[in-house]
Amino acid sequence: MLRLVCISYEDNTVKNMNKDNLPVLAVDIGGTKIIAALINSDGNIEARVRTPTGAAGGKDASLSNLFLAIDNVLNTGGHKLDEIHSISIAAAGAIDMAKGVVTASPNLPGWFDVPLLALVRERYQVDSYLLNDAKAAALAEHDFGAGKGIKNMIFLTISTGIGGGIIIDDRLYFGKSGVAGELGHMTVEASGPRCLCGNTGCMEIMASGRAIALNARSRVEKGAKSIMLELAGGNIENITAETVSEAAQKTDAVALEVVNRAAFYLGVGMANIANIFNPGMIVAGGGVSKMGELLLSPVRLVVRERAFRLAADDMLIVEAKFGDDAGVIGAASYAYSLTVRSPLS
Amino acid sequence: MLRLVCISYEDNTVKNMNKDNLPVLAVDIGGTKIIAALINSDGNIEARVRTPTGAAGGKDASLSNLFLAIDNVLNTGGHKLDEIHSISIAAAGAIDMAKGVVTASPNLPGWFDVPLLALVRERYQVDSYLLNDAKAAALAEHDFGAGKGIKNMIFLTISTGIGGGIIIDDRLYFGKSGVAGELGHMTVEASGPRCLCGNTGCMEIMASGRAIALNARSRVEKGAKSIMLELAGGNIENITAETVSEAAQKTDAVALEVVNRAAFYLGVGMANIANIFNPGMIVAGGGVSKMGELLLSPVRLVVRERAFRLAADDMLIVEAKFGDDAGVIGAASYAYSLTVRSPLS
Repeated sequence: MLRLVCISYEDNTVKNMNKDNLPVLAVDIGGTKIIAALINSDGNIEARVRTPTGAAGGKDASLSNLFLAIDNVLNTGGHKLDEIHSISIAAAGAIDMAKGVVTASPNLPGWFDVPLLALVRERYQVDSYLLNDAKAAALAEHDFGAGKGIKNMIFLTISTGIGGGIIIDDRLYFGKSGVAGELGHMTVEASGPRCLCGNTGCMEIMASGRAIALNARSRVEKGAKSIMLELAGGNIENITAETVSEAAQKTDAVALEVVNRAAFYLGVGMANIANIFNPGMIVAGGGVSKMGELLLSPVRLVVRERAFRLAADDMLIVEAKFGDDAGVIGAASYAYSLTVRSPLS
Repeated sequence: MLRLVCISYEDNTVKNMNKDNLPVLAVDIGGTKIIAALINSDGNIEARVRTPTGAAGGKDASLSNLFLAIDNVLNTGGHKLDEIHSISIAAAGAIDMAKGVVTASPNLPGWFDVPLLALVRERYQVDSYLLNDAKAAALAEHDFGAGKGIKNMIFLTISTGIGGGIIIDDRLYFGKSGVAGELGHMTVEASGPRCLCGNTGCMEIMASGRAIALNARSRVEKGAKSIMLELAGGNIENITAETVSEAAQKTDAVALEVVNRAAFYLGVGMANIANIFNPGMIVAGGGVSKMGELLLSPVRLVVRERAFRLAADDMLIVEAKFGDDAGVIGAASYAYSLTVRSPLS
């Protein structure tokens, strides 16, 4: 197909095109760790540092760890600030894209209405970008990972909670204020239990890592015979989604029931995604997705049972390619996409 | 903002630009009626005919009524086939966009895998287009109706069933095979009753016109005192969504309960839409939406309770502008959009 590049010269996102030879300094700040990396436009990581977020220390502590990580990766990579393309940050939390503000983050205590973009720009005086971490991971999977070449792709990160990212026409979809893609907070069982978001019966409260752990603990507490108690050192409170996964792989009946219940609700959610988006692919990332086929195989059955045939047939459900690096790779890709963009694809 | 028009000359949808002065012959074929109209690029109707579909007569009867409507509107408008832009058809049913085939239609008995686009092209030898009727209505509301100027807009048609259309970046979103937007078949209560689509707890089975009528009948059958029975001429089976609406407007307690139950599930679905799409607007069309604020006011309360604040605050929920003409106006707009399109907006 013929490709033309059309540039609107009044569009202030188009500038300094030759900067694209420089690496993006990408940072992913989550509840437990900060990863900072220098990443080039092919998605390759030139340097990387990893440090605890220190979230329990509050906003100032985690912010100062964030800045430290930025300084460290510059040193590690041997780069000065004028030798990078930009700083691009993927952050856990709800982000007001118009203002560059982290409005709230369940995993970063004390982070309310933090003007992170302004803080970074002020401190480093370079082009800076900010987006939600699940959206960044979606972009990483689309641009360089499992969803490469898939025009319309949905990313789900299934870990303690469930986050999402939507790719429409090969681009990240943000919605009006930048908070689109909260697929974990799609109600699938309105009469179900209350979610941390205040809603009832969200896919997250029915099928996340937290839901899996709680369901397993409750069954063991009620006396179900399972190797999970042993795997958790005899302490019910130590049963996690990983415990469930380990026991299920050993064909523990109780653990398999717990996995299949989560798979049912993930399947309901993914069937909704099929009927709503008719996408080419759902990419599943996050800790829980590491269960692999044990989880995804029953999920696919539920989707086939529930979604429209044409939509289900056309939709692959696959594991994510990237693990912990998805956030930084996606943040870098996002920064490059904002400086050069061909409106034709 | 500077606007450049970029045309890919290998794109075969770009041809014969001056045809845009000619009206589109747009047709909307539904379960009960066919509307055919000549519509110009401003969305104005130059001529219109309306005829029963005769769906009960089977596929051949309804197809022959469709062709008759096309012939009639040409006569009515005093146009020959070479004086129209194209024929564009909005059809009730699931449409395989790659093949131009109506794969199935619950409201058109006998319509399975009907190659409607090929049939029309063969018969009339003019450029022809085909899309789903709810998607056409979405485009009409976005281009000329309640959603004018709203970049990301969701359309819901709430009548016997619930259909949908998705506008992303001012364009209709089709998904991989053209069946995106089946918002009525989003599960909101997985443990709920079985929907006609085979799924359980879809928004449609919980809140459509059919659901409203069934819920009202069931309550009256169980002995609830309501003026609905009288309004339905003493016959429970004659209670429809319109009966419920009429009784609710007269503050009949049972009817109001029925409306509020539907509003709850519509609110759950629209909160999902807020969290997923973060759109600027949901436009509600279809017969049930004619209840107006009686229905939409409790819906808004549910959305505000359930959706993320930023997404809920940014999302208007309004009644559709167009009634029965939405399908033909949207079908015409769709035909024009395929012949001239600026990739910059």
